Amino acid sequence: MIERYTRPEMQRVWSDETRLRRMLEVELAYLKALARAKRIPSAELDALRALLDHALAEQVKNREAKSGHEVIGLLQAVSSQVKAKAPQLNRYLHYGLTSSDVLDTGFSLQLVEANSLLLDSWRAVAGRIRSLAEQHKDTWMVGRTHGVHAEPITFGVKVAGWHAEALRNIERLERARQLSSFGKISGAVGTFAHFPVAFEAEVCRELGLAPEPVSTQVVPRDRYADVYHAWVLTAAAIERIALEIRHLQKTEVLEAEEPFTEDQKGSSAMPHKRNPVLCENLCGLARLIRTYESAVVENCALWHERDISHSSNERVIFPDAAIALHFMIHRLGQVLDGLQVYPDRMRENMERSLGLVYSQKVLLQLIDAGLGRLEAYELVQRNAMKTWKARRPFLEFLLADPDVTRRLPAGRLRACFDLKSYGGAIEEILRRGGVTARKKAGAR
Amino acid sequence: MIERYTRPEMQRVWSDETRLRRMLEVELAYLKALARAKRIPSAELDALRALLDHALAEQVKNREAKSGHEVIGLLQAVSSQVKAKAPQLNRYLHYGLTSSDVLDTGFSLQLVEANSLLLDSWRAVAGRIRSLAEQHKDTWMVGRTHGVHAEPITFGVKVAGWHAEALRNIERLERARQLSSFGKISGAVGTFAHFPVAFEAEVCRELGLAPEPVSTQVVPRDRYADVYHAWVLTAAAIERIALEIRHLQKTEVLEAEEPFTEDQKGSSAMPHKRNPVLCENLCGLARLIRTYESAVVENCALWHERDISHSSNERVIFPDAAIALHFMIHRLGQVLDGLQVYPDRMRENMERSLGLVYSQKVLLQLIDAGLGRLEAYELVQRNAMKTWKARRPFLEFLLADPDVTRRLPAGRLRACFDLKSYGGAIEEILRRGGVTARKKAGAR
Amino acid sequence: MIERYTRPEMQRVWSDETRLRRMLEVELAYLKALARAKRIPSAELDALRALLDHALAEQVKNREAKSGHEVIGLLQAVSSQVKAKAPQLNRYLHYGLTSSDVLDTGFSLQLVEANSLLLDSWRAVAGRIRSLAEQHKDTWMVGRTHGVHAEPITFGVKVAGWHAEALRNIERLERARQLSSFGKISGAVGTFAHFPVAFEAEVCRELGLAPEPVSTQVVPRDRYADVYHAWVLTAAAIERIALEIRHLQKTEVLEAEEPFTEDQKGSSAMPHKRNPVLCENLCGLARLIRTYESAVVENCALWHERDISHSSNERVIFPDAAIALHFMIHRLGQVLDGLQVYPDRMRENMERSLGLVYSQKVLLQLIDAGLGRLEAYELVQRNAMKTWKARRPFLEFLLADPDVTRRLPAGRLRACFDLKSYGGAIEEILRRGGVTARKKAGAR
Amino acid sequence: MIERYTRPEMQRVWSDETRLRRMLEVELAYLKALARAKRIPSAELDALRALLDHALAEQVKNREAKSGHEVIGLLQAVSSQVKAKAPQLNRYLHYGLTSSDVLDTGFSLQLVEANSLLLDSWRAVAGRIRSLAEQHKDTWMVGRTHGVHAEPITFGVKVAGWHAEALRNIERLERARQLSSFGKISGAVGTFAHFPVAFEAEVCRELGLAPEPVSTQVVPRDRYADVYHAWVLTAAAIERIALEIRHLQKTEVLEAEEPFTEDQKGSSAMPHKRNPVLCENLCGLARLIRTYESAVVENCALWHERDISHSSNERVIFPDAAIALHFMIHRLGQVLDGLQVYPDRMRENMERSLGLVYSQKVLLQLIDAGLGRLEAYELVQRNAMKTWKARRPFLEFLLADPDVTRRLPAGRLRACFDLKSYGGAIEEILRRGGVTARKKAGAR
Repeated sequence: MIERYTRPEMQRVWSDETRLRRMLEVELAYLKALARAKRIPSAELDALRALLDHALAEQVKNREAKSGHEVIGLLQAVSSQVKAKAPQLNRYLHYGLTSSDVLDTGFSLQLVEANSLLLDSWRAVAGRIRSLAEQHKDTWMVGRTHGVHAEPITFGVKVAGWHAEALRNIERLERARQLSSFGKISGAVGTFAHFPVAFEAEVCRELGLAPEPVSTQVVPRDRYADVYHAWVLTAAAIERIALEIRHLQKTEVLEAEEPFTEDQKGSSAMPHKRNPVLCENLCGLARLIRTYESAVVENCALWHERDISHSSNERVIFPDAAIALHFMIHRLGQVLDGLQVYPDRMRENMERSLGLVYSQKVLLQLIDAGLGRLEAYELVQRNAMKTWKARRPFLEFLLADPDVTRRLPAGRLRACFDLKSYGGAIEEILRRGGVTARKKAGAR
Repeated sequence: MIERYTRPEMQRVWSDETRLRRMLEVELAYLKALARAKRIPSAELDALRALLDHALAEQVKNREAKSGHEVIGLLQAVSSQVKAKAPQLNRYLHYGLTSSDVLDTGFSLQLVEANSLLLDSWRAVAGRIRSLAEQHKDTWMVGRTHGVHAEPITFGVKVAGWHAEALRNIERLERARQLSSFGKISGAVGTFAHFPVAFEAEVCRELGLAPEPVSTQVVPRDRYADVYHAWVLTAAAIERIALEIRHLQKTEVLEAEEPFTEDQKGSSAMPHKRNPVLCENLCGLARLIRTYESAVVENCALWHERDISHSSNERVIFPDAAIALHFMIHRLGQVLDGLQVYPDRMRENMERSLGLVYSQKVLLQLIDAGLGRLEAYELVQRNAMKTWKARRPFLEFLLADPDVTRRLPAGRLRACFDLKSYGGAIEEILRRGGVTARKKAGAR
Repeated sequence: MIERYTRPEMQRVWSDETRLRRMLEVELAYLKALARAKRIPSAELDALRALLDHALAEQVKNREAKSGHEVIGLLQAVSSQVKAKAPQLNRYLHYGLTSSDVLDTGFSLQLVEANSLLLDSWRAVAGRIRSLAEQHKDTWMVGRTHGVHAEPITFGVKVAGWHAEALRNIERLERARQLSSFGKISGAVGTFAHFPVAFEAEVCRELGLAPEPVSTQVVPRDRYADVYHAWVLTAAAIERIALEIRHLQKTEVLEAEEPFTEDQKGSSAMPHKRNPVLCENLCGLARLIRTYESAVVENCALWHERDISHSSNERVIFPDAAIALHFMIHRLGQVLDGLQVYPDRMRENMERSLGLVYSQKVLLQLIDAGLGRLEAYELVQRNAMKTWKARRPFLEFLLADPDVTRRLPAGRLRACFDLKSYGGAIEEILRRGGVTARKKAGAR
Repeated sequence: MIERYTRPEMQRVWSDETRLRRMLEVELAYLKALARAKRIPSAELDALRALLDHALAEQVKNREAKSGHEVIGLLQAVSSQVKAKAPQLNRYLHYGLTSSDVLDTGFSLQLVEANSLLLDSWRAVAGRIRSLAEQHKDTWMVGRTHGVHAEPITFGVKVAGWHAEALRNIERLERARQLSSFGKISGAVGTFAHFPVAFEAEVCRELGLAPEPVSTQVVPRDRYADVYHAWVLTAAAIERIALEIRHLQKTEVLEAEEPFTEDQKGSSAMPHKRNPVLCENLCGLARLIRTYESAVVENCALWHERDISHSSNERVIFPDAAIALHFMIHRLGQVLDGLQVYPDRMRENMERSLGLVYSQKVLLQLIDAGLGRLEAYELVQRNAMKTWKARRPFLEFLLADPDVTRRLPAGRLRACFDLKSYGGAIEEILRRGGVTARKKAGAR
């Protein structure tokens, strides 16, 4: 991933050094299993960790190029360090293993780390969403469907919807981390041909992983495709929020704005502009995360006990997507931290539709007053159309329509235009969205 | 979906009639809530069900076209039936609801049904996979990586890997069904502006659903995108199996064949051909299921409280994908039922690599005998190369190589070429793959 | 494709009957080549066409099911009709051909027809776009970038951009039609093993096609993937227009509205609503067309001389996408026909940014007056910020700022706020967009 | 793109330095237009180029970070260099332009370069494909459909199919380069509000580009989506070839092998293995190129005169895809250069189907001899089935079947099994595939 969208803590998870280090941890855990089984002397093992340092990683990278095979390169590098001081151990290094035992188990370790970082960042962002919802639970604005004014809503209720989705993504990312934590030490075709089955469990336990129930030469790729989907949906949730803010920041709407620092410049041409570039950027990156998915799923069906058609694109996609998503989560955090919300403008905009957002209340009151639905609908629509044409308040027309006032006295009509009557469910919605109190596990 | 890939029971779930019927069930459940709340008389309610019959559905379809709005069309049709006999109820039909309350809750009902059918079919197929694994647990064949002979494996072990994945897909489909079972009765922008919040829970309970924690005008689409991914991964699992069978049926390999009926014709040109067309077809359909996914995810970010950009493609994708996947599962079942497996040919093919599939055993024995890994590797590779060039048995060359025999006496060398030594983990693998005994929940 | 999105003329192209008819035309053209080569008597040929009628197509469909092979089914049906009256011809029916000679060549015929329909409809829509651009070439509105007011533009200029893209899509669809018009009569593996190469050219010429330069058993799928991309980009162009209209119809903007018939109902809940549902629908269908593409490209790499993994999804995707795109083009036509444009509102909205849309003119005038860019930029931004805060006209602040007026006398300042000065290029833009005069081929 | 898949010449096209340099070239070309129009003194212009050197680029990068706006950062950096020595020019730098004038026009320059490199490499590879086809035009092997033996083919004919596709991709890449070569200098919303329309043509001409017919703030993205598809189809062509080689290298088939250097190691576990890892890698990268496409198409529909949701993913996708595709083309070149082809094994494999590959010849001869197609088909199939069961030559059974020999004397039967009779079209196929002589433009 390009530097611009890379945060160092996630970068570290996917660096060459980390990758090689994770691979060495797998080899080391396997040697421990051999030592416990008395195949190699424990004494040598104690000395081993000290021998494997950063310099090694460097050397490994150099070797790799020559041999054209990453794991063989790593083994040669280690071997050259270990040979003299731990000859037995050297002989048994990688004994009976296949490269993928080391590569996939190491990859799972990286994936667990990546999911942990994503989860932590996402939890923090979910917290910000929650505060925002609480803060604006009574900030009225117009709810819009199809981009058109519908009925009143509060900004807090809108944000509670984001929070409910954020909670679903916490569950998804937790599930993804759990799905990632499977290793595979089963040999060339998954048959444990050259060492006891129990070694796999020992190695995995040592590394904090569980053994893959049935592996081929590799961990079956449906596992990783399942993990990946949690990232896609998290990115989609970010897109939903970013898209909303972009809409709210449109000049004609301007109910909210993403943060804009004093010395930032919006346009090289137009000095007055404040553009929602952070949110636009998030929408663009969500497309990136989403677009990788079909390759990730294509990788599931491999030839026989494995072909290696998956590895080239995984090598790009998983790091790039993890890094980009991590960046997105942080950027969303910044946007939410500095979000400008304009309640006055929200009210002002709501009034632009001249009271038509209350039309359903009137409709239902007419029904309650004994009218049939269709008749009531036509009465309301008739006055709505006049309102729209004349650009004068809906209430005015209703009060002037005897067919209406015959059923609804002025007092009841006016009551339909009271915002408070729209807010009866706010507290419950916030509770259900996990804003004001945790929901039980049942609700997802 | 075209007729060719449509099975009637899944077709029924997605028929116009079913869709309208589910919508009516939602309206009806809502009227019951109103009755319980004494807004309408229960007496009328009792008569209602009888009024809504197939003829209605037909009429509804006609109306729909004219009004250009499906739910309004439905309401008019119902209203014309109900008006005379249940005037109160007629007035309160759809009272305070928005179309999506009915459409999305109805859609969830369809989705639950679809997932149930998929799950049942998939469970049946998983059972066939399981039998196949059991039956062939000791049927030896060569394991292949990169399409190249690697080490011996049994067909049962291979199939156990399919079964482990099948179990993961059972879990995924169960989760998908659970994720589908959320309804939404919260009005135009999700604020319960015109009826008590409690109505939603009552309606949902009546229909066997749970209430969506926070809805907008619609059920948030990340829920459906999560459901859809279970279908994508189930299709990918089918593709994995179908791809394997296609490979095994290649003329040069011919270790298995999909069923071929006596009067079937393989080719209009070449009478001798028996082509794996069922499996090829499955691979093509897996691409179809996979390709829909990006639209499903794009639908997640809607404008404000909803825009309707999602509905046109959902209307095509969910029925088409459910029907195609259901067809795929059944077709896979047929393939597995009639699968021809040729153990003799499996043995014969394994022998084609002249014993080289045992090379790692020899390598490790040389290490056990005291050799360094690299020396051992070179010894083995040297003889492997000769074998390959001369097309004579690997063992022969090893026995003739004094550098080898000095470390490994002929008896130990010969023992390396014993298949049984590769089978020590078979029972455990089958257990872990859920073939011979259920694994605990922990292992996924 | 579901009925709702199906227009009959495109439906006909993809009906079972048409498909079988096209296949028969291929068989017939091939028999003619055989007759010309004196392999079969011409006399019989003359009688043939009469024998192949609609009833045949029906019968064919029935047979197909039984034999499990579409082409063989067709041949049997034809044979049963032809046998008695044209025995020689019957023997030579399909002589030396493979099914795909008939299937792919027939498919190309369908594809040419589909592309012709698409092209005709698209040309008609392009004409409407052109009229719209002409009609509104001087209708001023604010140009928006990032959803934020930028500089004045005319609606006609905006639409000219759509028209330029429409012209590119005319070229793309023409190219797609041309790319579709390749047939393939080369036998089982593309080697012309059983008939002269020249037959292919004869058959293709008869059918209005060219011979595929090198085929395998099938027409290479990169050809169809190239055709498909023209559809994807046409759908994307529709999405661009539909998205713009949705934005213009937002309540706060309301500069245009898609057509809304008198008796149409916008919402089952809110009688006042006029939602851009046609355009939202178009955006959703564009996702559908786009989402199919990855499967179409995956189909390119087939095994050896072909595998049949492509056909199952092609059978769904090509008809469904052609039908949906055809529907989209027509629906866009309706939207454009009835589009309501509100020039007054456009002006009104432009004024909402208080003259800031003219800021760059002021900036550049200050530079022309001798100021450095940065100084000029800061002067302008300073006054822009005040304008925004105080919600009073930008010009007012400029006139009150001595640092400005020292360089720009009031007259020159006021001239910056003259819309006409923004319109100098309108005629040229319309020419370049093909609105007021055809551009030469060079510009695409 | 990760280092492993990056070649330096393509890397350079997409480096930060190149990008900034291209942007400066655009600014410079624009200043020249201003000078020609006498807005700025030419004298200063002459000094300018010298001022813009590598050090500048470095400084620019530093500044960029602070301002949060790439183009503004660049302008500030340039300004600080130019101010003292060319004050007029400094004031008019970027006069009336918008950032995208510089960014998109610069991007087009990069895209032209990238397409040129791709085209050159692809042409070289096409040359290798052509030689391979020529070399093996008479190397007989079995043609396979559905992975099953079909009819004889030559390796050269197979490769001629690749070459025909390669020629189509040359055309596509040429078209892509031509489509890339459009610049855009039209100001903030594409209206040329602050400078003459003619400047755009002048700047573009200076840079070797044509002016975009109608731009918004940006070059319309359908143009780039069209360019991108050429890359997708080129990658798909590589995948087709790589997939074929992987199949030919399967142990049971082994008719060809990708190059394998002496000191390369195929497996850390199994020393005898020679895996088609280069080709597997190519297949995986083709998935990567393909998977990006949906984001590229999604970028087409932007809000109003542009939103910036496209730029974040374009910044990743275009460089990454160009670099990966360039790598793929070169890697394919290496594979073809060192490809091992085994004609003996090809013959040997062909014989494994015991003469059944000649069955259609027999079928057609029987028809020629007067038999009806169905009767002939059944005669052939009967003997084919026996052949398959008994594993003895097809010809043997035919010669022993009086129903056959009654129609076809032994001589004519034997002639059916003559490979040469399958080769009549080879020369023509190679000509049509552009291998032995250029085809005319008409055939694509």
